[in-house]
Amino acid sequence: MDKSEFDLIESYFAPLSKGYEEAYSLKNDAALISVHPDHSTVVTMDTLVAGVHFLITDPAADIARKCLRVNLSDIASMGAEAFAYTLSMAYNDDLDSEWVRSFTNGLESDQKRFSLHLIGGDTVKTPGPLTITVTCFGTVPRHQCFKRSTAQPGQDVWVSGNLGDSGAGLKILTGEIDVKNTSFREELIKRYRLPQPRMALGVQLLNQQLTNTAMDVSDGLLADLSHITNSSDVAAILFEENLPLSNAFTNLMIGNADLKTELAVTGGDDYELLFTADRIHRDKITELSNILSLKITRIGEITEGRGVSLIRKNGEEFSITETGWKHF
Amino acid sequence: MDKSEFDLIESYFAPLSKGYEEAYSLKNDAALISVHPDHSTVVTMDTLVAGVHFLITDPAADIARKCLRVNLSDIASMGAEAFAYTLSMAYNDDLDSEWVRSFTNGLESDQKRFSLHLIGGDTVKTPGPLTITVTCFGTVPRHQCFKRSTAQPGQDVWVSGNLGDSGAGLKILTGEIDVKNTSFREELIKRYRLPQPRMALGVQLLNQQLTNTAMDVSDGLLADLSHITNSSDVAAILFEENLPLSNAFTNLMIGNADLKTELAVTGGDDYELLFTADRIHRDKITELSNILSLKITRIGEITEGRGVSLIRKNGEEFSITETGWKHF
Repeated sequence: MDKSEFDLIESYFAPLSKGYEEAYSLKNDAALISVHPDHSTVVTMDTLVAGVHFLITDPAADIARKCLRVNLSDIASMGAEAFAYTLSMAYNDDLDSEWVRSFTNGLESDQKRFSLHLIGGDTVKTPGPLTITVTCFGTVPRHQCFKRSTAQPGQDVWVSGNLGDSGAGLKILTGEIDVKNTSFREELIKRYRLPQPRMALGVQLLNQQLTNTAMDVSDGLLADLSHITNSSDVAAILFEENLPLSNAFTNLMIGNADLKTELAVTGGDDYELLFTADRIHRDKITELSNILSLKITRIGEITEGRGVSLIRKNGEEFSITETGWKHF
Repeated sequence: MDKSEFDLIESYFAPLSKGYEEAYSLKNDAALISVHPDHSTVVTMDTLVAGVHFLITDPAADIARKCLRVNLSDIASMGAEAFAYTLSMAYNDDLDSEWVRSFTNGLESDQKRFSLHLIGGDTVKTPGPLTITVTCFGTVPRHQCFKRSTAQPGQDVWVSGNLGDSGAGLKILTGEIDVKNTSFREELIKRYRLPQPRMALGVQLLNQQLTNTAMDVSDGLLADLSHITNSSDVAAILFEENLPLSNAFTNLMIGNADLKTELAVTGGDDYELLFTADRIHRDKITELSNILSLKITRIGEITEGRGVSLIRKNGEEFSITETGWKHF
């Protein structure tokens, strides 16, 4: 690195705290969070390692935004409004200040998009790969948030957006899948590099009391839904024909119907919102989908029992050989 | 690693959240912080990398406690009471679950000592060195905390504990210094491995309104005091003869008077509290020192101008060749 820690912070990171007075321009040992007395602060933390959670060849600005967005997705899955984050960067000699400038430009652009401020953090040297940890903060009405343990038999299972795009995007980048159509290729890679956290959906689901039970899909639909069913001591049935898939993904998978389904439910890194809701809320959720211009699909239902089953159109169970991404 | 991420979290980390209901046993995407409506939350974040901030050969429990304590020291330097933290661990194949158990035992012991709960975090694999990031949370009366920018000419400069021990301890561990006296050797190494964050002092200084200006000494006294003088647009004079030194450190440095002073003011990793206070508070600070059974030493004064000077007993200026630890 061609700059010292102090220069990096002053030149690139401190400006990102502007407008948040109690971050003290990142010059104090710590920052203050003073949320409205009727609110609680929501806290989540995710670490991303080069070569594990992103590729070091990805554009620096996209890496920055991915680090923010995977955290924002957790904030959304609590029904919270995000407002601030701290960021720690362990960097090695492969990076120079130009890279850091692109990285902080990426942060800046997403700060504007999601109304965030950087309020603290750390920069350290490492002999290892670039490692970035973000702790992200949101607010909810005091003591209110979604949980994983509150799903009830009879409820519908819903998911936002499309599944599998991001998993396919990674396989394209690593050369496991070949795509000739340039526009599909770009679309799927973009979905891998740039998750779209569903902030407005999370907040609206909480405000309108349409659900108590939500999480984001990061390890793959099956793995994540099983967290909900295990925590809630219920089972879930998913309908293969209802899985929301993009045109790009569907086209890529022509002739590979089973692989398509498998990647859609195990690919991971989707960062879509998964939630359960009483049947009585179907119309309201459809209305919300229209208002937000966001696909929200009813993909299954919660039942008595244990486990998650995926059912083919003919009523047979789809057998999955993988069980979601393991990052470790 | 011989266990999966889920097993690690469930077996070793989740029990550390017990007693903090809104951590949801670490099973949710995020935790809630619901501080008293009259209080603000203080947030600080530090990353420690094996081989840079600790030695991988250090006992796992000590590494855990160091990760907590360097953050607690920042909380103390804001005048805050700590109550919770999140922890992210990027680990490699060199570690097994036995190591993690010792590590979490270290966390548990310090949670009891400092009244803390683990409320969230992340565990990821890395091909690089063990990298641990802690985000620590404290509370202060709403909008109140110490800053670096409020030092005034005429104020005294104070520091808690002794300086240089930790820097000497590291030099012993790396073989740069040889110590024959076993008890001194152990004492100094312990000071490097296990900082003593000055929690009670920070809280008392805020409650009794004895200062507005504080920080912890992590990069070395001179480097850190210069952060205060630069932020406050003032200068500082330090008196060499007043620097607080332990018996172990003094004995180690017999015959090396200048090296002794240099290591004391640049060694770093002291994690003592550095603050400025009006002269009128001298008696109260001495009284506080007695009540807390903690050495608090008046080491200099704030003046008009810029920069930090260290003055020998004969009135000459001590010239330092180093300017504090650079971790990067």
